[in-house]
Amino acid sequence: MSRSPGRKQENHKISRELFVLTYGALVAQLCKDYEKDEDVNACLDRMGHSIGIRLIDDFLARSAVRKCRSYSETADVIAQVAFKMYLGVTPSVSCSSATGNEFSLILDKNPLVDFVEELPAERASLCYCNLLCGVIRGALEMVHLAAEVSFLQDRLKGDAVTEIGITFLRKPEDRKNRK
Amino acid sequence: MSRSPGRKQENHKISRELFVLTYGALVAQLCKDYEKDEDVNACLDRMGHSIGIRLIDDFLARSAVRKCRSYSETADVIAQVAFKMYLGVTPSVSCSSATGNEFSLILDKNPLVDFVEELPAERASLCYCNLLCGVIRGALEMVHLAAEVSFLQDRLKGDAVTEIGITFLRKPEDRKNRK
Repeated sequence: MSRSPGRKQENHKISRELFVLTYGALVAQLCKDYEKDEDVNACLDRMGHSIGIRLIDDFLARSAVRKCRSYSETADVIAQVAFKMYLGVTPSVSCSSATGNEFSLILDKNPLVDFVEELPAERASLCYCNLLCGVIRGALEMVHLAAEVSFLQDRLKGDAVTEIGITFLRKPEDRKNRK
Repeated sequence: MSRSPGRKQENHKISRELFVLTYGALVAQLCKDYEKDEDVNACLDRMGHSIGIRLIDDFLARSAVRKCRSYSETADVIAQVAFKMYLGVTPSVSCSSATGNEFSLILDKNPLVDFVEELPAERASLCYCNLLCGVIRGALEMVHLAAEVSFLQDRLKGDAVTEIGITFLRKPEDRKNRK
């Protein structure tokens, strides 16, 4: 039995707003549950990680991307395919280290904060969108790429752009090869 | 300054899966927070209500639907326009009362439970998707329609379909007119 990929993709498309508002309800609930911003951030990252390790199968099946040959290619796929597919935006990518394993995804507009005006004063350390870092980390883990993912800049905190930093952690054999 | 509606809508489209998994994380968190299923259900309904009263503006702006002239037309718009736009599915609608104010939205497939196999035995009374009832109730409230919204059947609980019941509460002047 075959199914047209076009049709299948069509069925998966939804409007972003319900998602964005539901995400807001999740963050608000965690802010009720945890007093410290750091605990909320850690919880969002953990939740994102659980989501990422499940979402990767869906992503590989529907995007039909091939195995990436470099960290740079991987960062491009995250920005141009995954962000586009799941959030409807395409961040720009820049490589931020001479060693070629650190990348930044720069979002001029962060769709997840559509309905958020600013963080309350008592939540100044909250990484509102930290779930995304966990999702990226979890998904990369499932394709055997260890990475650290975190927000480097955040428009919600007054920065000019929103910037997610991805540092691919070199595997032991990479380190050995470099010696 | 004009903008093509087609283009605007395109920018709002995302894949459903990240939303579905994020919703799952929200329900799981509430199950940690509240021991009783009834409390989780009530919390999801409250959150949905807050979402609905904000989502209605987006819906009216982007759907460009006109004022509905009957409860029946309203139920059809919820099913055919709102569900399609925000969840990518179109429930069938049936009127379940002679008085014309009770409707059922029947979902053969509930997209919100894509990744849920079954409810754990200790959560048998959980209305997993109760957020949706709150969203519908909140959105209707903003267009001056009071309604009770609840799950009547749920495939997660072994029913053949998922059925959301909407009972429009007649306004005092309606009652007076009928006397």
